[in-house]
Amino acid sequence: MARQYQTVSFLSDYGVEDEFVGVVHSVIRDIAPHARVIDLTHGVAPFDVRAGSLALARSIGYVASGVVLAVVDPSVGTSRRAIAIEVAEGDGVVVGPDNGLLAPAVAMAGGAGRAVELTSTEHHLPSLGATFAGRDVFAPVAAHLCNGVDLGELGELIDPDLLMPGVVALPQVDDTKVIAQVLWVDRYGNAQLNVGPEDLPSTFGDRVELRFSSPTDPTGGAQRGAVRANTFAELDGGAVGLVLDSSGLLAIAMDQRSAASELGLDVGDQVTLLPSDGGDAEVAAQPVTLGRSDDASS
Amino acid sequence: MARQYQTVSFLSDYGVEDEFVGVVHSVIRDIAPHARVIDLTHGVAPFDVRAGSLALARSIGYVASGVVLAVVDPSVGTSRRAIAIEVAEGDGVVVGPDNGLLAPAVAMAGGAGRAVELTSTEHHLPSLGATFAGRDVFAPVAAHLCNGVDLGELGELIDPDLLMPGVVALPQVDDTKVIAQVLWVDRYGNAQLNVGPEDLPSTFGDRVELRFSSPTDPTGGAQRGAVRANTFAELDGGAVGLVLDSSGLLAIAMDQRSAASELGLDVGDQVTLLPSDGGDAEVAAQPVTLGRSDDASS
Amino acid sequence: MARQYQTVSFLSDYGVEDEFVGVVHSVIRDIAPHARVIDLTHGVAPFDVRAGSLALARSIGYVASGVVLAVVDPSVGTSRRAIAIEVAEGDGVVVGPDNGLLAPAVAMAGGAGRAVELTSTEHHLPSLGATFAGRDVFAPVAAHLCNGVDLGELGELIDPDLLMPGVVALPQVDDTKVIAQVLWVDRYGNAQLNVGPEDLPSTFGDRVELRFSSPTDPTGGAQRGAVRANTFAELDGGAVGLVLDSSGLLAIAMDQRSAASELGLDVGDQVTLLPSDGGDAEVAAQPVTLGRSDDASS
Repeated sequence: MARQYQTVSFLSDYGVEDEFVGVVHSVIRDIAPHARVIDLTHGVAPFDVRAGSLALARSIGYVASGVVLAVVDPSVGTSRRAIAIEVAEGDGVVVGPDNGLLAPAVAMAGGAGRAVELTSTEHHLPSLGATFAGRDVFAPVAAHLCNGVDLGELGELIDPDLLMPGVVALPQVDDTKVIAQVLWVDRYGNAQLNVGPEDLPSTFGDRVELRFSSPTDPTGGAQRGAVRANTFAELDGGAVGLVLDSSGLLAIAMDQRSAASELGLDVGDQVTLLPSDGGDAEVAAQPVTLGRSDDASS
Repeated sequence: MARQYQTVSFLSDYGVEDEFVGVVHSVIRDIAPHARVIDLTHGVAPFDVRAGSLALARSIGYVASGVVLAVVDPSVGTSRRAIAIEVAEGDGVVVGPDNGLLAPAVAMAGGAGRAVELTSTEHHLPSLGATFAGRDVFAPVAAHLCNGVDLGELGELIDPDLLMPGVVALPQVDDTKVIAQVLWVDRYGNAQLNVGPEDLPSTFGDRVELRFSSPTDPTGGAQRGAVRANTFAELDGGAVGLVLDSSGLLAIAMDQRSAASELGLDVGDQVTLLPSDGGDAEVAAQPVTLGRSDDASS
Repeated sequence: MARQYQTVSFLSDYGVEDEFVGVVHSVIRDIAPHARVIDLTHGVAPFDVRAGSLALARSIGYVASGVVLAVVDPSVGTSRRAIAIEVAEGDGVVVGPDNGLLAPAVAMAGGAGRAVELTSTEHHLPSLGATFAGRDVFAPVAAHLCNGVDLGELGELIDPDLLMPGVVALPQVDDTKVIAQVLWVDRYGNAQLNVGPEDLPSTFGDRVELRFSSPTDPTGGAQRGAVRANTFAELDGGAVGLVLDSSGLLAIAMDQRSAASELGLDVGDQVTLLPSDGGDAEVAAQPVTLGRSDDASS
């Protein structure tokens, strides 16, 4: 008998309006009554594998040992593989579709150990239809793992090096600028960038210029000064900050206001960070009109 | 001492913005600390007994044995009865208002055994007002059931045949057409019909014509070809599918897009399924403008 | 070893779209696996300390003994204190920021016993940034309390009389009128007032006139008759009621409709209650146009 697990940490794009999440909980409760299910979030946008993979990666360092169940699965029912991957020398098993959703979290947990494709249908529920693998495949597998079923019984061993990688956008850094991307806009309107404090060139000071361009307007875009800060409250009135966020990345933020709404930022937007010339301390508090370039003077 | 229960499966229209759900959890935790409460969903639209009854019916086959607590209760505080019904030879007890909410789930669980009206106020909480029966009546009753209180102690036995029935719309089927209704639009925009695959006449092939009419425009309505499919991913580009969904019913669906948004479908809309003449394989991918009949050429 | 706790009752403004709530659950699960976390609500509007304090006060009488964890924390990372307060002779400990969020609940729980500022960083998690105290400070503290760590070990004892008070708006009552405020609009559109039934002068009968004025139009405002009622269903058709709600306060309500939407009411609006002259029984069902005073005849 393999080790048992006590906790299933569960993330999906199921939302909370329908009963999908509750049914998955019910299936686990029925098969493995001792297991506790912790909802990481179900607010991932429908079908958004990338957003789900980032939320999972932000969470993975904090989940209790046990099973991690992640389902954002636009290709449910097709030949995309359903998989389970051991991490942390068996302290954890990550279960979900092989579509890139799991890869960043697995990497952050130290990389993949054994991996299987979930082909053992005796560990699944009989399906009325092929559209709810969370209920019929992933939840029962998670529960059987909690009960001590060994990973190897759940299907064919597969090569973990051949799992679908996640897509991680790296910033472009040189001495004069950092071209970054908005990874996430949270409930408070903080816009997390794919840039850590160590990515900023040492020539950058406490003030940074931000130049915004959206996918639809890549060359234009407004510019705004931002102050580097450790807390939101350091930011006066309408000042924009570049704050070290809880994931250890830099986020564009304002104090008790949504920076994303104020600046028209959305996930995927490009933001170029430039050193400030030091003479624009007042700029931060000025209103800015996005959608035109700064030199449009007419 | 009657049998104890370990799980309360909880569904309501309480939403998650207010503390209603949390207070119900708290009351159960206080009275029956060993019980686990599983939230099926609280996203039922306010007062929508019919939608709640359908979500409960979709879930009931998967809930763990124990108490099922369901509260969509527009007539809270009036003479509508508060009830508890044994199902599955006492493996489960369904608790809630007697307004049709529980009936479809009880039927799917094999029908009612003993039933009581919850008149034993010693098993309720004292109420500050009459508007939160979930907290003051249903939650304490669910918790006392978990603790081993027998159903018969909770109130007067009533005739289970006289419980309020649910409203189930049956499709109208003949050899040439099926007149169906949209039962549910889920988060992904799949529009579930009240039609199972066995309801489709055998003369229907792999392609079906869908004719849409809304309550406000019952005779007009657009038409669109649909492909029968087992998975969303079988549907090309803009193709509309008739997919066997996870409840075993047919749903109008598109691949990674909301069919309901695309086709303007909402719960309660009528959809007529007609056999395809076989010559319209291209129609599926064509855009369609809803709200005018196809032959309106002026 | 101090007493252990079994339950953490958790309220925040984190929402359910992001993984904040799930990460807090994970931290507690990791440190104190025996503890059960009950989500009171996470739907408090971002940064809205007052709304959070009211939701917590409405809940506190129902939470299981144990730790209450409340986080609405616009000044996270600044010098605002992180605190823990014993209540009910140690049956409970309330943990959160010292910004007024906790005060009404502590008062309703009988007042503060020992209180500490959470300065013992060995009971916190190492932080990547200063912006997620729920994860790095409050959740580990709640978990350590569940494990039996004494309050006194968590930081410096502070004077509970010097904690930040909550802001409670009292109604202005005289023999001829009650000037009230909307405290809360719930999911169903019921508008709770800061008025209990005992606040209404005895000269008021079963019918009351409501005069509405918003912060932007304090003197104008429409007027409407309301019936006092114990249940929503006592209210006919379009009638407006003053219903004794589940918190023991009076709420402006309609039967199966949103009174707040119908009357244009929002949190913070002022409502003046006047005795009815008794001759306006028909008024209740009349439509009313808000935003102009009743005597504006042009």
